[in-house]
Amino acid sequence: MATYPPAIERLLAELTRLPGVGPKTAERYVFSLLRQSPERLKNFGYAIEHLRESIVACQRCHNFDDHSPCRYCADKHRDQSVVCVVADAPDVLAIEHTGVYHGVYHVLGGSVNAVEGIGPDQLHMHDLFTRIEKEKVSEVILAMNPDIEGETTALYLKKALEPLNIKITQLARGIPTGGDVTYVDETTLGEAINHRTAA
Amino acid sequence: MATYPPAIERLLAELTRLPGVGPKTAERYVFSLLRQSPERLKNFGYAIEHLRESIVACQRCHNFDDHSPCRYCADKHRDQSVVCVVADAPDVLAIEHTGVYHGVYHVLGGSVNAVEGIGPDQLHMHDLFTRIEKEKVSEVILAMNPDIEGETTALYLKKALEPLNIKITQLARGIPTGGDVTYVDETTLGEAINHRTAA
Repeated sequence: MATYPPAIERLLAELTRLPGVGPKTAERYVFSLLRQSPERLKNFGYAIEHLRESIVACQRCHNFDDHSPCRYCADKHRDQSVVCVVADAPDVLAIEHTGVYHGVYHVLGGSVNAVEGIGPDQLHMHDLFTRIEKEKVSEVILAMNPDIEGETTALYLKKALEPLNIKITQLARGIPTGGDVTYVDETTLGEAINHRTAA
Repeated sequence: MATYPPAIERLLAELTRLPGVGPKTAERYVFSLLRQSPERLKNFGYAIEHLRESIVACQRCHNFDDHSPCRYCADKHRDQSVVCVVADAPDVLAIEHTGVYHGVYHVLGGSVNAVEGIGPDQLHMHDLFTRIEKEKVSEVILAMNPDIEGETTALYLKKALEPLNIKITQLARGIPTGGDVTYVDETTLGEAINHRTAA
């Protein structure tokens, strides 16, 4: 079987590990990269190589930022007693883009998923409970995706949080079923935050 | 407008330059990369950064390889007088995978495209003519894609090569394996009938 030179095969292997990237897409990327200048490739490679060095997970909320505590946890102007729980870091930015939320976050790092074997222990849930115990939390907003994994995660959290006697809310169902917190338009997501209901 | 930390924004900008990658796809890639180990990122970054250092375009046929002349141009067992002209380097590997071709190649580096302003001068066409003048070429196979750009490129080459009195052929048109007579397009079916072969 004919193959590409090692440097190309190596990069193809790395690219196909990206979500949704198959051999043909990786090939397209490589040949697009081969047309770029060595300087551009240097910058691109550097950005990947050093990504983890300049990006840290916030020790309090697990959001990715260039410092810990992250910009939201460190912001004195935000309501540090309202905690919005999201599955992944991109959800934080999606909610920020609505401009209507002024509390803080807690990034679970995924959702409960029986098929993939992701249980509550694989997520940053324990940290959330410790956080609620130690800090003065007045409200927890459950902002998981309205899909099976998200609902399961929200239900689990609701059951675990109920004995703690704090206000538990969830995003209003302005979000269409089958939608995605990261991808929904800002107005819809903003309405969902404004009209959050008792869980 | 809320933004990601600089290291993420920088990588997002690089990723969106890849063909077909929009902001949301780039975001998916970045957060997938953030879950990988620093070692993996180092390897990935290195593979991109040093891609051009270990990959060169063959000075004769413009195929990408780790040396010039490339493996096909340097292979004494191949028929160096039969030249298959393709648009891009991945086409070379696709043809190699068939196992039926034993000639050499000429990579144009694209197709004539009026919309994108790519004319024959932006492609490695002059090199092809020089090559035919200097070398003993017995046959030129036009292996461009059967679309507007490919057809235009093939037509241009055919007109330019005709006075040189060499055999010019093109890839057969017909029903692809696994295709369906009912659903195949009319042009393809028409060509399959016109160029029918002995059964």
